Amino acid sequence: MRRKEFKVESEEELEAFLDSMSFGFLGVIDGEGRPRVTPLNFVYTGGNLYFHGSRAGGKMEAIARQPQVCFTIADEFALIPSYFTDPEMACPASAFFKSVTIFGRAEIVEDLSEKALALGCFMKKLQPEGGYEPIEADHPKYRPQLKAVAVVRIVPDEITAKFKFGQNMKEDDRNAVISGLEARDGERDAETIEMMKRYCPYHAGLDTEEA
Amino acid sequence: MRRKEFKVESEEELEAFLDSMSFGFLGVIDGEGRPRVTPLNFVYTGGNLYFHGSRAGGKMEAIARQPQVCFTIADEFALIPSYFTDPEMACPASAFFKSVTIFGRAEIVEDLSEKALALGCFMKKLQPEGGYEPIEADHPKYRPQLKAVAVVRIVPDEITAKFKFGQNMKEDDRNAVISGLEARDGERDAETIEMMKRYCPYHAGLDTEEA
Repeated sequence: MRRKEFKVESEEELEAFLDSMSFGFLGVIDGEGRPRVTPLNFVYTGGNLYFHGSRAGGKMEAIARQPQVCFTIADEFALIPSYFTDPEMACPASAFFKSVTIFGRAEIVEDLSEKALALGCFMKKLQPEGGYEPIEADHPKYRPQLKAVAVVRIVPDEITAKFKFGQNMKEDDRNAVISGLEARDGERDAETIEMMKRYCPYHAGLDTEEA
Repeated sequence: MRRKEFKVESEEELEAFLDSMSFGFLGVIDGEGRPRVTPLNFVYTGGNLYFHGSRAGGKMEAIARQPQVCFTIADEFALIPSYFTDPEMACPASAFFKSVTIFGRAEIVEDLSEKALALGCFMKKLQPEGGYEPIEADHPKYRPQLKAVAVVRIVPDEITAKFKFGQNMKEDDRNAVISGLEARDGERDAETIEMMKRYCPYHAGLDTEEA
């Protein structure tokens, strides 16, 4: 049985989520034809996703052989215990989360200006308080570093987003989960309730999809 | 240039980390030969990793075609700003994290007792407070549910763990990062300092590896 989940339609919402997440998981195919998954910091800018790393090593070799890659980012908001909706059976235990999966083509960036731009976006995202000289391709100290570092651009063919906040639940169960979260009042429970209300299929009139 | 990072040797430490993480990222190869990365709740028990899901859908089709999979779990402890060690250049900006990557063979579990055992481990991990009837294969209400759900066991061929806490830094820079974290005093900064001390290559005498 396939369940209906919410599909995010808005590019703005997608970007806000990707900007809020510091790292994601790159999937490549290695030399032995096996999938390989690596956690990496990333930025999403101008419709492309960038990561950086060493020029040597397994990831770069894998990309050179097979540039078709996958990059997935996910954030778990809340574990939903079964007893919120069922006093007896464990089956309704679940988790609410946001996830985004990008399928695309990995391209090694050679242009120093694009490298500088991408790494500048990294710094703005991960060190927004500043405290460094701006990264520019003609900066005498940055230039050799820019040549040495590998920057990879993933040009998306397909982006899917799944924001799962109980959109497929019956209204009584949804209300029971909201009450349960209110009573539990964990670190992110108020935020989770907000998401459940934002993506509520009964009120918002948003599209759902077969997930 | 490849950097030396800490490799976790202790099975106990590995298990403690995997027990503390509620979800990880499964990498499979899809019908078009592309890598595909999916976030999933998991348990690691008896030396195997288990996840569950719908019997239908892309993941199960992919596994049936190509059972060699990868499962990666990562936790980012701290972003390390460049100015902790360099007042000028952005280059030292980094992140400290724990990650574990399991390469292995995915096997669909058909035995109802093993399914019940694995799902019982899920519940103990993700709902430790209880509030449900124990999952048993001969329980009249669980039995049809156990038949309906897909449970997958990943039998590891290879497990690599990377706990990166500045083991490759010069001692002066390490000390500067510790001071910076102490002054910043963010949510997980004290814990990060503890990890830096635990995995310190200058004191603990632990093995390092080419990462």
